[in-house]
Amino acid sequence: MKKIFLIALSFSSLLIFSQTDEDVIKTIYKQSLTNGKSYDWLNYLSNQIGSRLSGSLGAEKAVTYTKEELEKLGLDKVWLQPVMVPKWVRGAKEFAYIESAPGKTTTVNICALGGSVATPALGIKAQVVEVKNFEELEVLGKENIEGKIVFFNRPMQADLIHTFEAYGGCVNQRAQGAVQAAKYGAIAVIVRSMNLRLDDFPHTGNMNYGDLPVEKRIPSAAISTNDAELLSAMLTLNNNIKFYFKQNCKQLKDVESHNVIGEITGSEFPNEYMVVGGHLDSWDLGDGSHDDGAGVVQSMDVLRLLKESGIKPKRSIRVVLFMNEENGLRGGRKYAEVAKQKGENHVFALESDSGGFTPRGFSFDCTDAVFEQVLSWQSLFKPYLIHYFEKGGSGADVGPLKTESNVLAGLRPDSQRYFDHHHASNDTFDAINKRELELGAATMTALVYLFDKYGVNPITNSKKIKN
Amino acid sequence: MKKIFLIALSFSSLLIFSQTDEDVIKTIYKQSLTNGKSYDWLNYLSNQIGSRLSGSLGAEKAVTYTKEELEKLGLDKVWLQPVMVPKWVRGAKEFAYIESAPGKTTTVNICALGGSVATPALGIKAQVVEVKNFEELEVLGKENIEGKIVFFNRPMQADLIHTFEAYGGCVNQRAQGAVQAAKYGAIAVIVRSMNLRLDDFPHTGNMNYGDLPVEKRIPSAAISTNDAELLSAMLTLNNNIKFYFKQNCKQLKDVESHNVIGEITGSEFPNEYMVVGGHLDSWDLGDGSHDDGAGVVQSMDVLRLLKESGIKPKRSIRVVLFMNEENGLRGGRKYAEVAKQKGENHVFALESDSGGFTPRGFSFDCTDAVFEQVLSWQSLFKPYLIHYFEKGGSGADVGPLKTESNVLAGLRPDSQRYFDHHHASNDTFDAINKRELELGAATMTALVYLFDKYGVNPITNSKKIKN
Repeated sequence: MKKIFLIALSFSSLLIFSQTDEDVIKTIYKQSLTNGKSYDWLNYLSNQIGSRLSGSLGAEKAVTYTKEELEKLGLDKVWLQPVMVPKWVRGAKEFAYIESAPGKTTTVNICALGGSVATPALGIKAQVVEVKNFEELEVLGKENIEGKIVFFNRPMQADLIHTFEAYGGCVNQRAQGAVQAAKYGAIAVIVRSMNLRLDDFPHTGNMNYGDLPVEKRIPSAAISTNDAELLSAMLTLNNNIKFYFKQNCKQLKDVESHNVIGEITGSEFPNEYMVVGGHLDSWDLGDGSHDDGAGVVQSMDVLRLLKESGIKPKRSIRVVLFMNEENGLRGGRKYAEVAKQKGENHVFALESDSGGFTPRGFSFDCTDAVFEQVLSWQSLFKPYLIHYFEKGGSGADVGPLKTESNVLAGLRPDSQRYFDHHHASNDTFDAINKRELELGAATMTALVYLFDKYGVNPITNSKKIKN
Repeated sequence: MKKIFLIALSFSSLLIFSQTDEDVIKTIYKQSLTNGKSYDWLNYLSNQIGSRLSGSLGAEKAVTYTKEELEKLGLDKVWLQPVMVPKWVRGAKEFAYIESAPGKTTTVNICALGGSVATPALGIKAQVVEVKNFEELEVLGKENIEGKIVFFNRPMQADLIHTFEAYGGCVNQRAQGAVQAAKYGAIAVIVRSMNLRLDDFPHTGNMNYGDLPVEKRIPSAAISTNDAELLSAMLTLNNNIKFYFKQNCKQLKDVESHNVIGEITGSEFPNEYMVVGGHLDSWDLGDGSHDDGAGVVQSMDVLRLLKESGIKPKRSIRVVLFMNEENGLRGGRKYAEVAKQKGENHVFALESDSGGFTPRGFSFDCTDAVFEQVLSWQSLFKPYLIHYFEKGGSGADVGPLKTESNVLAGLRPDSQRYFDHHHASNDTFDAINKRELELGAATMTALVYLFDKYGVNPITNSKKIKN
């Protein structure tokens, strides 16, 4: 019986080794599209667990659930890596209105920014100063800002094709707006949501006070794009209107949480590690399906798809589900710290944290030689409409793993709809298309397969081949 | 005053001619993303007019509305082209159930297929024979089919990356299922919806009886994918279960409708025509936002974006909003017929009829020489993530314009979500993303700009340049 099994095993190994890369990649895509698990996993994560802000019950449930699911896959190892994370809670839902005259109010949609302090219990009401950037604050100066609410209203730039660029061009309003406005005596900050669409959803996201003393910290909230337009229009008519808001958020003590890790140990180079990952935490308004439930389940499916496709990796492939990307990056830092302590050689790390939309390709943080190698694989991806291979960023969680010689990469899905949902209450499972999610998982698996097979150091490899 | 105007005009012309293709295309995309009209037009078409089945009030309102909107653009000509179209009406909503035992029924979601006859007034109830294809019908033969309802249940193939291929592999069940099943004495046909997703929406679409005599025509309906799975599972448990359905559709007499046409007359080659178009009619269940409201408004915006970008075309550019693509193609045929009668030289025609999703590129029906020319433009499209340039089909409405030397093309948007909505009641405006729609309009405009500038006959052109 054992002998037959071994023969069967050798035969299946032979089968794989006699297959071309085209064949293997075709099998990977077929497996994902007809037998993928990512959509079912995400359904559970989004609809049974829901939002997963660091330190929340949802985050802890997600740790337990994904660990259990990884254990079912028959990987070589599955474990939890402890990490202390910040715990910020929103408290009761925020409330805000524009007061155009005493007693004449219009309710608007806001949400506290992550990390913000609360307003006083009765809320804050004050005049509003609208600005587009920090330079305008400086021009206005303390005499025009003190005692007022600063309203940052620079929209995302619509004519940028890469929406992440448009995000990058605006996000300092959210992240540093409070610190900058506090310099001039502002008593609160309202920030236009990072959203390319005009709608009613306020989008949260992290802000920080830097080294601002506790007593100088001012509350900071996001306002929906529709209401940002309304507020701006009302200010144009009458700059004496007042804005009222109340929020009830709180920073609690750090708590322990975990990165969730699974591994297929490499058959030839077990001490060379390749990571695929996404972040398990999410913001608290939606269920985090796109940010980053999608990346989590795709990364889990990479290891499963390798196994289901009969691929036995030479290197150790790890899935890492990072905790606390959104408001601290503690999980990503902890993983890299432990890897360094243990002297683990991380040759490759791929993150999926740009939504579960149709994959278009990857961006790479690597040497020119490796990038040449990547470009030589382009035709393998063409049947799957994967065409984007560019140098650029990878992912926040894998960033701390960067060395001079290793390869970091980020999955690049279609980004046009991403900021419609990002950090808002409509980042929910119904915005996920099963096929798009599965195509992403397959695309990641194909890249991992190629880097495992050909290595991440083309020169050394070709030497090896010559020897 | 006039002189100043002329000087300004010459200056703006100079400006365009001194611009590189890169600059012009950048302007086109910027115009579409910051100043596009396609989304507003589609909002009206979808939410104020709604569904536009040929011969319906909605179709006629759409003719009037789009003509008026084209007239506002200051084109050189706008007109209606009469065309007789079929008029099929659904009547009262369909009703269907599976009867597992007398009195034990489960309601299921169906809709009549376009062109189908009604059931008798009391409906049809009969046993069900499930098949995957026409060959199985032949094997089963009259003895197993006569007096029963044939249930075509071949799903779309999930591992095909191009979802239109998966559609092509299934649609004969819908189009010819009734004629094929009638041969063996079936009394009705139920067809699994052409949908890659499992959900509750039945998807309509055209079917035809060929030359089957009226008295032999059997009613034909689509069932949602969830209910197709249910019916199939119930048949596996008990193949004596019965299926009941009632539908109330009717084919009326042909009525007059119109293609809507607008033109910018060419400055150098006014007798060379370039067409951009989509079809104005839609199915009746949703509001036809993706099929093909998107193509209509994008095509309208092509002419507007050319003007707004300061491009004065050498050839005559026409937008044609075709009537009756869905159940007759009468508009496409009429347009080509009139063009032929008038001896109009149509050198190029581009259709957008694959949904309003992120554009990926084009397919071309053209000579190898022209295709070489197209490939030489690829780098111009790269900044906009437009990478798909392949030989293949164009669009149903422009098909009749094909000659040996002209160029037909089809916009190819991302197709993963298309069949979630196609011909179903969820083909609605909320499934449209403004940016994706605008990127499509810009991409079409850029292609029209290039073909107008460089012509569609590379050999003749290079000769011209030499002379």
